[in-house]
Amino acid sequence: MSGIFTIALDAMGGDHGAHVVVPAAVQALEAYPDIHLILVGDKARIGEELAACGKAPSDRLRLHHAGQVVGMDEPPSQALRNKKDSSMRVAINLVKHQQADACVSAGNTGALMATARYVLKTLPGIDRPAIITAIPSIKGHTHMLDLGANVDCTATHLYQFAVMGSELASAVDNIASPRVGLLNIGEEEIKGNDQVKEAARMLEASHLNYIGFVEGNDIYCGDVDVVVCDGFVGNVALKTSEGVARMVSHYMRNEFAGSLYSKLAALVAMPVLKSFRKRIDPRAYNGASLLGLQGVVIKSHGGADAVAFENAIRIARLEAQKRVPQRIDKRLEELLKEANQQ
Amino acid sequence: MSGIFTIALDAMGGDHGAHVVVPAAVQALEAYPDIHLILVGDKARIGEELAACGKAPSDRLRLHHAGQVVGMDEPPSQALRNKKDSSMRVAINLVKHQQADACVSAGNTGALMATARYVLKTLPGIDRPAIITAIPSIKGHTHMLDLGANVDCTATHLYQFAVMGSELASAVDNIASPRVGLLNIGEEEIKGNDQVKEAARMLEASHLNYIGFVEGNDIYCGDVDVVVCDGFVGNVALKTSEGVARMVSHYMRNEFAGSLYSKLAALVAMPVLKSFRKRIDPRAYNGASLLGLQGVVIKSHGGADAVAFENAIRIARLEAQKRVPQRIDKRLEELLKEANQQ
Repeated sequence: MSGIFTIALDAMGGDHGAHVVVPAAVQALEAYPDIHLILVGDKARIGEELAACGKAPSDRLRLHHAGQVVGMDEPPSQALRNKKDSSMRVAINLVKHQQADACVSAGNTGALMATARYVLKTLPGIDRPAIITAIPSIKGHTHMLDLGANVDCTATHLYQFAVMGSELASAVDNIASPRVGLLNIGEEEIKGNDQVKEAARMLEASHLNYIGFVEGNDIYCGDVDVVVCDGFVGNVALKTSEGVARMVSHYMRNEFAGSLYSKLAALVAMPVLKSFRKRIDPRAYNGASLLGLQGVVIKSHGGADAVAFENAIRIARLEAQKRVPQRIDKRLEELLKEANQQ
Repeated sequence: MSGIFTIALDAMGGDHGAHVVVPAAVQALEAYPDIHLILVGDKARIGEELAACGKAPSDRLRLHHAGQVVGMDEPPSQALRNKKDSSMRVAINLVKHQQADACVSAGNTGALMATARYVLKTLPGIDRPAIITAIPSIKGHTHMLDLGANVDCTATHLYQFAVMGSELASAVDNIASPRVGLLNIGEEEIKGNDQVKEAARMLEASHLNYIGFVEGNDIYCGDVDVVVCDGFVGNVALKTSEGVARMVSHYMRNEFAGSLYSKLAALVAMPVLKSFRKRIDPRAYNGASLLGLQGVVIKSHGGADAVAFENAIRIARLEAQKRVPQRIDKRLEELLKEANQQ
């Protein structure tokens, strides 16, 4: 591949489909000279959006037809059975057949996970893939998994998440030994449920840089690189954070819109407020990885705009470049060898 | 009691003990003419703090000696066994012996729950008490439970939480039929774990105004009055929210402290920012209720200052006035009768 990364994009997925994915692709090609993109979906539809951007297909921007689309509310099993020619599935197929190094979809999470798992398979030693994303923190960002793929997790699942999350953080952030924390409701040993307590024992005995239990507020403090939890808890934490951020913005807008003085103050404070908003812009964090598969699959938020989708492409490129699945695979092999020697 | 509410305060609990509780008590007596307070703990220590406030004991502000203090990290079982004369326990005893209508403690949550449960007992029909608090939302506030008393919950527990939360919201907010939502990771029927799905079936068949599944972000949107979840998930959601709020404040302070222009902008925007901060001041939400007990027990944050502790006293007064435990008891009796008739 000589330093060129090819990324397949599900051009029909998400709330806005090609209308968002095509402009995002055009922007990404400009931003990253070392990527090639394949737009997968209805050729006519994609062609229209390309024309609207004043662009045409090229060596770096190819079109690949797919005749079906997975609905945003379509049950995963149905998508798996009936949508073999969907833009989502065909994009994943391109990864499987090594015609792409990664794929990105804004389509429905359940269908994407089920299809990716079916087509690409999990890595040997991984029972269940997990969803991981970077979350802004006071000092940078924190990787958190699982975010909703697995509602009930055993201690072994949590342990596997920790191994995968640690490898990903190490690869994409260039950290030798990422700090791994287990999300719990108290720092004392006595608290928490049975799975978490057992997972803590496994992590203490592992090669990982396990720093112990962390609480919800620690996700944002910047003193932990990888936060591990089950998918129910992780999803609630992520959505709750979105809710708080939205409420804070709402209050702030209201306050600055109040009196004439407030409105004038808003004008004066505008550059500062803009810079602040940029710092917490969720679009800069769009793009979650389906981790534990034999290939890079990135999930973009369904409602993502072109800026946000471009960020998901950036993450796909980074994970392909850093060979994240191969690194996890290698680490799992080492762990298996160690276990067999004991 | 003829409209007078007596509240026992654990004057030694929390990170700051009497130094915070006594001034909070003095303020609360001024704010609420219909309350009497009993300061429970080391009489000499309390006396000093009273003198520092320029106050002396009175009809409305009595002292009640207790010779022990429960440590903030003391295991609940140990507190229960060895601290029979702790300020926490004696304050709860006053509620049991109807010398107080409610009590407030900033002491450790586990010990408070264990002691309150042992001394006061749970209401008939309640397996486990839960911790509930009001959380600010875009439109007012949302009551959420459980926040950490119960890490593993069955569907029946979640159902009981819903009944209790609905009665509390109805009582303190004067809502005839509070909207109750079950915290889940997706609005679709297929998602969620078994307990949540089964609890949903029970709530659909109940008399409650059950509005279905809600997600983390819905806690803050103001379209639900009571959010029900297990204590692990609730505690993570609450702590995560604190983390986000703290990060947002940190970013904002940083932005306004950046350049000379930013600093000037901060001066101009100060009244607006102050008003904004007041809107999201966590002290205005300090005070969680231990629900499901035969008495009103309010937990203040361990690190609460006098403003925050006074708010916990306000909540104790409100729940005593609205007779929250009696209301829950009555509702449970009705439910039991209905069940027996079927």
